[in-house]
Amino acid sequence: MQLQCPMPKLDFDIITMGHGSGGLLTNRLLDSGVFDLLKNDLLNERHDGAIFDTQAGKLAFSTDSYVISPIFFPGGNIGELAINGTVNDLAMCGARARYLSLAFIIEEGLNMQEFWEVLVGIKFAAQQADVHIVTGDTKVVERGKGDKIFINTSGMGMLHPKADIRKSRVQPDDVLLISGPIATHGVAILSVRQGLEFESSIESDTTNLNHTVMRLLDTCGQDVHLLHDPTRGGVATVLNELVRDTGLGIDLQEAAIPVLEEVASACELLGLDPLYVANEGVFLAVVAAEAAESALDVLKSDANGLHAAIIGNITTQHPRQVVLRSKIGGRRVVNMPIGEQLPRIC
Amino acid sequence: MQLQCPMPKLDFDIITMGHGSGGLLTNRLLDSGVFDLLKNDLLNERHDGAIFDTQAGKLAFSTDSYVISPIFFPGGNIGELAINGTVNDLAMCGARARYLSLAFIIEEGLNMQEFWEVLVGIKFAAQQADVHIVTGDTKVVERGKGDKIFINTSGMGMLHPKADIRKSRVQPDDVLLISGPIATHGVAILSVRQGLEFESSIESDTTNLNHTVMRLLDTCGQDVHLLHDPTRGGVATVLNELVRDTGLGIDLQEAAIPVLEEVASACELLGLDPLYVANEGVFLAVVAAEAAESALDVLKSDANGLHAAIIGNITTQHPRQVVLRSKIGGRRVVNMPIGEQLPRIC
Repeated sequence: MQLQCPMPKLDFDIITMGHGSGGLLTNRLLDSGVFDLLKNDLLNERHDGAIFDTQAGKLAFSTDSYVISPIFFPGGNIGELAINGTVNDLAMCGARARYLSLAFIIEEGLNMQEFWEVLVGIKFAAQQADVHIVTGDTKVVERGKGDKIFINTSGMGMLHPKADIRKSRVQPDDVLLISGPIATHGVAILSVRQGLEFESSIESDTTNLNHTVMRLLDTCGQDVHLLHDPTRGGVATVLNELVRDTGLGIDLQEAAIPVLEEVASACELLGLDPLYVANEGVFLAVVAAEAAESALDVLKSDANGLHAAIIGNITTQHPRQVVLRSKIGGRRVVNMPIGEQLPRIC
Repeated sequence: MQLQCPMPKLDFDIITMGHGSGGLLTNRLLDSGVFDLLKNDLLNERHDGAIFDTQAGKLAFSTDSYVISPIFFPGGNIGELAINGTVNDLAMCGARARYLSLAFIIEEGLNMQEFWEVLVGIKFAAQQADVHIVTGDTKVVERGKGDKIFINTSGMGMLHPKADIRKSRVQPDDVLLISGPIATHGVAILSVRQGLEFESSIESDTTNLNHTVMRLLDTCGQDVHLLHDPTRGGVATVLNELVRDTGLGIDLQEAAIPVLEEVASACELLGLDPLYVANEGVFLAVVAAEAAESALDVLKSDANGLHAAIIGNITTQHPRQVVLRSKIGGRRVVNMPIGEQLPRIC
């Protein structure tokens, strides 16, 4: 953890049903450092909601629940994921996240040390993304009715003035870019779940894409037609939704798709297709053909986009199909997955 | 259920892990009627978030997770509760709820018929409150890692132009009103949990308080100093938080506090103090003394406020204490509850 925040001394070690009561124990839990750690003027009001001014303009609003198992994994924890995930969903709308809500469903018996580490992850990720947690909720359920901790974050952000990101803007000949190597998050989670040891440890790429997307919009503006982070179900799912909803086709160049060497080996070993594995700190961008090179330049100059690449294009050739051109010249249709290779990956 | 929406014919009866995958099964679940039932232009975009214009002004933002057990109870279900609860949290900020997010954490094996009834409850409550569900999320966890369904809703609303609701505005001699009879929701839930049969069935009072609060603010405006819905922990908890945070005291008149006769009997039978029992469709208002009668008139003229009453006042006499004057002239301190008489009540 990049942020050092020692847990305050408490007179309890584990969270019990009473901590979800709304009474003295709930207050004690929140006073035990939660409010101190996450403090800001809006949260400090401790009312049922937060109130703030907004400039006239367009707002984006998004929600996600995080049920990842295990809650600690190489490269992060559920708290960081819960902040980054919603920040990134807003970024995919072309919005810069500003205010987040934070709601916990805790299973009775959760260790306070673990809860604290999750909170510190939340604080760290919120600082990195420059967002404020302004309202929240804490519920506790009986042992066996939850799984350590589930987190919901919802977020609001102001739309970038140049953003106009909609599936209906995707056109034939648009170019498809990816901001970084795929399948890293999913393989990192799987490795801890299965107790696998790879030669080099693979860490989740969970991070905020806020700043990267804002830079892309600064430069390419309305030439950015669509943004999407391929989390659950991976790149294959997002692209299949895109061809389904637009009626267009996609050509993918297998050789161009960045995958870290150790991730590729792990996928081979485990029989996973990286196109279907979940990602966190990566996004797909569909941009006008004439803006593709400058979009790539912006991404490559950003810490989150060092491995960015142009990986394909939109086509009318095979409507509603995602077609992969393989390294050795073959072509195959990439279908929508039916279920999930890796449940509870986010 | 006041709304008739037959479930469409489906090729599956229960929700499985695959329905949380983000892939084909997730899409099939959402296409099975969820999108149809809840449709609006913003939700129909099916992007990661919703985007909308906002007038310049103050926005309120709130979140709550709902983990009530059982999910169906006399007078409602978890879906209605999840809409009404967040609508009411916004109302307590002086805001009229406008947009909601909706996030499900479903336990594998949930029956589609039950899920459908919850959805219909959501639609009904959203219609009643005149709010739009504009973004959402669905996760599925393994059997034994959840409890049928947990719902998070977050909401945004525009602040009433006359609203200025803050604990710091509460003054000595302010008057305390309640909009309706207390303890009804908690007793209704307890009765189904324990399989108790009362002479007349007691139904949860879950409803939206949106419109009622807007009317109160139309008339009394800035004379309304604080609003609070006494959900978890009941009236006693909310009032204890108020005296803790303001340093003032509260005098409560026991005889003035409305409790339905059957609820009072049930509490006596069960050994519950109605002051500590959870409420849903009821709120507390702290108003300037000179506005108390007109506030009471507004409430009594509203369907949600027929039993509204003035139940006490703010005082400097006994700082940080809530004191109940009993029907027979005694006085006792009403303390903050430690844990919860009734866990998972909302």
